[in-house]
Amino acid sequence: MRKNILVGQSGGPTSAINATLYGVIKEAQKQNDISEIYGLRNGIEGALNDNIINLNYFKDDEMLTLLKTTPSAYLGSCRYKLKENDLETYSKIFKTFEKYNIGYFFYIGGNDSMDTVNQLKTYACDKNFDIKIIGVPKTIDNDLVITDHTPGYGSAAKYIATSFKEMYYDSKVYNKPSVTIMEIMGRHAGWLTAAASLGVDFNEHENVLIYLPEQSFNMDSFLETVNERIKRNNCIIVAISEGIKFEDGRFVCNSGGDTEKDAFGHSTLSGCGRVLEYSVKNKLKLKSRAVELNVLQRCASHFASLTDLDESALAGSSAVKYAISGETGKMVCLKRATGEQYKIETETVDVSEVCNKEKFFPKEWITKDCFVSSEFIKYASPLILGEPKIKMENGLPVYISL
Amino acid sequence: MRKNILVGQSGGPTSAINATLYGVIKEAQKQNDISEIYGLRNGIEGALNDNIINLNYFKDDEMLTLLKTTPSAYLGSCRYKLKENDLETYSKIFKTFEKYNIGYFFYIGGNDSMDTVNQLKTYACDKNFDIKIIGVPKTIDNDLVITDHTPGYGSAAKYIATSFKEMYYDSKVYNKPSVTIMEIMGRHAGWLTAAASLGVDFNEHENVLIYLPEQSFNMDSFLETVNERIKRNNCIIVAISEGIKFEDGRFVCNSGGDTEKDAFGHSTLSGCGRVLEYSVKNKLKLKSRAVELNVLQRCASHFASLTDLDESALAGSSAVKYAISGETGKMVCLKRATGEQYKIETETVDVSEVCNKEKFFPKEWITKDCFVSSEFIKYASPLILGEPKIKMENGLPVYISL
Repeated sequence: MRKNILVGQSGGPTSAINATLYGVIKEAQKQNDISEIYGLRNGIEGALNDNIINLNYFKDDEMLTLLKTTPSAYLGSCRYKLKENDLETYSKIFKTFEKYNIGYFFYIGGNDSMDTVNQLKTYACDKNFDIKIIGVPKTIDNDLVITDHTPGYGSAAKYIATSFKEMYYDSKVYNKPSVTIMEIMGRHAGWLTAAASLGVDFNEHENVLIYLPEQSFNMDSFLETVNERIKRNNCIIVAISEGIKFEDGRFVCNSGGDTEKDAFGHSTLSGCGRVLEYSVKNKLKLKSRAVELNVLQRCASHFASLTDLDESALAGSSAVKYAISGETGKMVCLKRATGEQYKIETETVDVSEVCNKEKFFPKEWITKDCFVSSEFIKYASPLILGEPKIKMENGLPVYISL
Repeated sequence: MRKNILVGQSGGPTSAINATLYGVIKEAQKQNDISEIYGLRNGIEGALNDNIINLNYFKDDEMLTLLKTTPSAYLGSCRYKLKENDLETYSKIFKTFEKYNIGYFFYIGGNDSMDTVNQLKTYACDKNFDIKIIGVPKTIDNDLVITDHTPGYGSAAKYIATSFKEMYYDSKVYNKPSVTIMEIMGRHAGWLTAAASLGVDFNEHENVLIYLPEQSFNMDSFLETVNERIKRNNCIIVAISEGIKFEDGRFVCNSGGDTEKDAFGHSTLSGCGRVLEYSVKNKLKLKSRAVELNVLQRCASHFASLTDLDESALAGSSAVKYAISGETGKMVCLKRATGEQYKIETETVDVSEVCNKEKFFPKEWITKDCFVSSEFIKYASPLILGEPKIKMENGLPVYISL
C-alpha cells in the first residue's frame, strides 16, 4: 500500500536546509511507493497542533530550484525538546502521523533534532507503528559526530572565509596599527571560526590569530601576542568563537555581564568580540574594532557553497531511498571517499549514536601560533567550492516563502 | 610637454573605490599627454613622506579587472585633515608633486577628501603651480551634495538590502514572536539604512520598521509601534541607522555608555541596535536580536553592484578627461539623465560647492508608517543592478593588494 511522507525542519536555520528539503521532495516525487508529500510546519510543533501542508504544488523545476537556493527554513522551525516520558505528547504526534497516513517521516536538523528522531523511533517501535523515521543532518556548526561534515557548514564556512578576507582588506588601508576582531558562531565547537583561516594566505598568516572554544583563552597571552606581532604587522585580524572560555571555565563574553539561556538551556552568547576589543584599546592603546557576524553567517544564501547545497540535497534524496528500503531510526551521514579526489557518498548510522553528542575541532589541528594546521585546510577546502546560480530580480536574489 | 599623473585614495574604504582607480589608470594609459601613472600611498600622507609608487605594472586587462572588483583601497587610505594655514605642509606636498613632475592629481574620497582637494587647488592657484587637481567622489554614505549619488553607495546598498532580506527569512522561522534589528552605517544621513527597504516587498511592509537619523527617534513610540504591529506579524524587522538621536539630541547609542571620537572629531558610533534590543526585551518581553553590519557593508565586494562599479570606473576615467581638458578644483559628479530609462552621465562641479556639506535623506521620503516612499525606491533601485564577474579561486573571490 502506498504511504505518504512527512518532512520537517528544526533547529537554527541555515543556507542549505532548504536544499535538503528540495532533495527529499524531488526524490519522493520519483518514488512509486510514495503518494502524498506533506510538510510539517514549525518542526515537531506542527505534529502537535496539526499544522501540516501538502507540498504537491512543488511541480516545476524552477520552483524547486528556488527552494534549493533559499535561506532559512521554508517550513518553519522550532526549538521544541521532547521529554522522554511525556507519553501524551508522543501519542498526539503519532495520531497526526496516522491521520495523514504517514509511512515515512524525515526530520532535518541538528543535535537536538536527532534526539527527537531517536525518541520518536523508540516510541514507534514500542507501539508497533509502521513508520520509517530518518534524520537528516543540518547545522552550520559542523558538530555532529560520525558524518564527515554537516550540510550547512560549507556555505557558512564560505561566507565566513569571504567576509574575513574582505574585512582584512578593509582593515589594512590605514597606516595606523589596528586590531580587527571577528566574532563567529560556535558555542562549543570551533569549526566555523576555523573557517576564517580559508580566507587568508596559509603561508603568511603572522597577522592572523584564531581562537577556538576547544582551547581555553588567556587574555594576557592574547594581548602579549598582539603586542609582539603588531611590531611586524600593521594590522592584526582575529577570529574568535563566541564560545571561548577562560581557564577557569568562565565565558569570555560573560566577563562583562550576564548571559541569557535559550529553550534548551544553552547559554545565548554574544559579545566576546567586544570584550577583546576593549581590552586591546585599554591595555595596548591600539585602535581596535569588533565585528560580529551574527545570523548573517547562517543565512547568506547569496554566496552559498554549491558543494554544500548539492550535498545537502543528496542527503535529502538519500534519506528517502533509505526509508523506502526499510531503514528507520537512522541519520544520513556524509562519507568522504578515500583517495586524493574529494568525493562524498552517503551512509546511515543509528541515530542514537549521534544525538546528544558533539564533534569538537581536533586539538591537534590547533597550532601553537594561534592558527590551524594544514590538515584543517585540506579537510575544509573542498566544502566551500562552487557557487549556485542564484535567480536575481531587481539586483537582489529571489527567494521563496510560504 | 608630457606630464605625470598622481592618484590617491582617502577616507573609509568601499567596494568601489578601486573601480575608480581602475578608471583613472585605464584612461590615463590611453592619453598621450600623460607619461607616468603614480599612486599615492595612504592618501595625502604619501605626499608628505614621499611614499609614491609607479603603477606602470598594471599592464594587462586581467590585473586591472581584478583591481576593479577588489574591496578596500588598493593604495591605502588616511584620515589626514589639512589645516588651512599650515603652509609648511602644503609646501611639502607640492615639493613632492614637483619631484615627480605631476601635472594632474586625482583624489578619490568623500566629504573630507574634497576639502583636501579644495585646499590644494587654492594653494596651487596662489603659488601658480601648473597642476590640475580633480576630486572623484567615493562614499558608501551617499551624503555628497550635487552628485546624483556617490560611487560606492550602490554596492553597499545592494549588500544591505540582500542581508536585510536574508535576515528577514532567517528570523521568521520560529512561531514565537520576535523583533530583529539591523544596525546600519550612516552618522547623519539615512541613505544606507533606507536601502534595507529594497530587500522587502514595498506593497507589504507592515512588519518592517525603518528609522533614519534625519528624524528624531522616540523610544516609547517605537515600542508602541512594535507592540501594535506584532499582533498581526509574527516577526518584526527593524533597520536603524547608527546615528539615530532622541528629540533632545542625545545619540541613542550613547544612552548606555560613552562615545569615542575619530581623527576628525566625529563620534564613533555603535550600539544603538543593542539599545533597542534590550528595550524590546525588557519593556515588551519579546524575543529580540540586534545585528550590526559594521564594516561588512563597505567591503562586501563578493556581491557588489555592477552598476556601481561601472559608474565608479566612469567617474575615474572622466576625471582624467576633465583634467586633460584643463579643468581643476572640480569634483566629478554623476548626473542622472532625464527620462524613464536610467542613464548616468558625468559633469563637474566646483569642489568648494561640495566639501564640508552633507546631503541628507529627504524628509518627505520618510513615511508616517516608519518606511520610505516610492520615490526612494525609484531613486535607489537602478543603483544596485547587476553583479560583476568575480574571479574565484578555491571557492573564494580573488582580490589583489600591494
